[in-house]
Amino acid sequence: MSEAYRRAGVDVRAAAEAVAKIAGIAAGATRPEVVEGVGGFAGLVRIGHGRLLAAATDGVGTKVEIARRSGRLDTVGIDLVAMCADDVVCTGAEPLAFLDYLAVGRIEPERVGSIVAGIAEGCRRAGCALLGGETAEHPGVLAPDAFDLAGCCVGLVEEQAVLGPHRVRPGDRLVGLASSGLHANGYSLVRHALLPRVELDAVLPELGRPLVDELLEPCAIHTPDVLALHRDGLLHAAAHVTGGGIAENLGRVLPTGLGATVRRGSWPEPPIVGVIARAGSIDDADLFGTFNMGLGMVLVVAPEAVDAVLERTSGRSYEVGEVEPGGQGVRIV
Amino acid sequence: MSEAYRRAGVDVRAAAEAVAKIAGIAAGATRPEVVEGVGGFAGLVRIGHGRLLAAATDGVGTKVEIARRSGRLDTVGIDLVAMCADDVVCTGAEPLAFLDYLAVGRIEPERVGSIVAGIAEGCRRAGCALLGGETAEHPGVLAPDAFDLAGCCVGLVEEQAVLGPHRVRPGDRLVGLASSGLHANGYSLVRHALLPRVELDAVLPELGRPLVDELLEPCAIHTPDVLALHRDGLLHAAAHVTGGGIAENLGRVLPTGLGATVRRGSWPEPPIVGVIARAGSIDDADLFGTFNMGLGMVLVVAPEAVDAVLERTSGRSYEVGEVEPGGQGVRIV
Repeated sequence: MSEAYRRAGVDVRAAAEAVAKIAGIAAGATRPEVVEGVGGFAGLVRIGHGRLLAAATDGVGTKVEIARRSGRLDTVGIDLVAMCADDVVCTGAEPLAFLDYLAVGRIEPERVGSIVAGIAEGCRRAGCALLGGETAEHPGVLAPDAFDLAGCCVGLVEEQAVLGPHRVRPGDRLVGLASSGLHANGYSLVRHALLPRVELDAVLPELGRPLVDELLEPCAIHTPDVLALHRDGLLHAAAHVTGGGIAENLGRVLPTGLGATVRRGSWPEPPIVGVIARAGSIDDADLFGTFNMGLGMVLVVAPEAVDAVLERTSGRSYEVGEVEPGGQGVRIV
Repeated sequence: MSEAYRRAGVDVRAAAEAVAKIAGIAAGATRPEVVEGVGGFAGLVRIGHGRLLAAATDGVGTKVEIARRSGRLDTVGIDLVAMCADDVVCTGAEPLAFLDYLAVGRIEPERVGSIVAGIAEGCRRAGCALLGGETAEHPGVLAPDAFDLAGCCVGLVEEQAVLGPHRVRPGDRLVGLASSGLHANGYSLVRHALLPRVELDAVLPELGRPLVDELLEPCAIHTPDVLALHRDGLLHAAAHVTGGGIAENLGRVLPTGLGATVRRGSWPEPPIVGVIARAGSIDDADLFGTFNMGLGMVLVVAPEAVDAVLERTSGRSYEVGEVEPGGQGVRIV
């Protein structure tokens, strides 16, 4: 997964090295209440009464650049909330509150309003409150029309209801929830491989709509589905498929000694991925290591729960594989 | 406060217009548990058992540019935690967890490690855990060595222990806690007014040390002082002095019908402010509307609590004024 992305200016090895460094540093700034720190989908802190606070932070990467170039600013806020809330819900927590950080080169109230309207819409879709935010003006550091977005989502979960590796058993099945396209990952690769060759307003036959519509399609927010299934006791774990793709993210919810097989072909892959692959001569390994490939979330469920999970998410879910004994990691076959 | 800052590229009127727009939009994405939304020092959400979750998000503005130019990256993380934790503690909440967002042009593990080490040090000073974070690489959007920092701090407070306007009475006294200099506000003005005229490594007689040392001096973190005083029942309200200065921020904790007088000369103003004022011909009104002027936090305390508060914060606090009947706002005399 490194070569195509490195050509796009993203250094995956440096990122991994930085992450390892950060984990060591963060371990030196903790509290006894912390149950899960840097590294999980969300951090978990014991707050008494048998409950945990869950929190996650994320951005939308350089998807903001597509928004800036096209002047369509009102949907990346939905992506921002999706990236954070769908991390929080992977712990089993209900997202309660969201806070945003918006850095702009120059504050133009209309543009800021459009961006924040997207964030508010994302909060409505995820069911959380837009509790706070900061709009920072960085003249001279960012170009006047450039901006960046980050956010933080906070939720609560009963300690006994935490989802994750400790619940996963051999024989568990994998149910994928359909993404709405690229979501908010791999955009530096998109900008490098595709945008020099295709105009944003070109209508590609594979897509049936302008490229910009496809690239700005907001993330599906899986939080309501995951919460509803979890409340009915149907889930063991949930993996939000973001940077690193299906294998890396699913791997984060597998306990030591268990692996998983994901069967390609058991769900539809988004046509946009094929467009990017051809434009940039990107191989399958790089694609699967960068994009969600059509699955925004992979749920781990007991065999007897599969039918109920598929039925309740009918039309937007697929059975895609299973958990197996052995430490082979996640194989995509 | 608008003219000097506007020349520096910061549009205060546009910012106010954007803030008003955001408040309206955020009101459409709320939940019944929200007690205080966008606008307070921190958002407050009822979580049951008589408790509230408090959360605030902030950045460090263009102080990051001073860090970038000088290559000294290990202290702006302290500023970041200060900006967020000292907002949270103004509600009376104890900061529990912090999450950071770091956007870089290119990930260099050593540089990222330095920045995150500062964040971890800030967390230790504020007493909260570094619970999570995101490091985003934005090739082509940010210059390779450019970066931006944002963060979110989450805390908890008993509902009956919330600080704020509802506790403030006429006759209450104001105690200022000494800042360590500019903290993290006004840096676009600094960059515009001062940096074209003075080298970063110049040793100015007023400062007695290189300018860069003064400009990168980390924020004093007032959280431990505020929490200790609050636990002993000595506080009515606390105002974190950030963008907008003493008057605007103290005004946020005054109830309708009460004003306040702050007596200039009752605390020492940092020499760096005089340096900036002379370099940029900036008048007192602009200075007081932009910088903290030496007070990082203003506490509102009952008259009978003043002595105890001053004694426990001896050497870093000053009695600076009082709360008065009448809706004249905050007067600095």
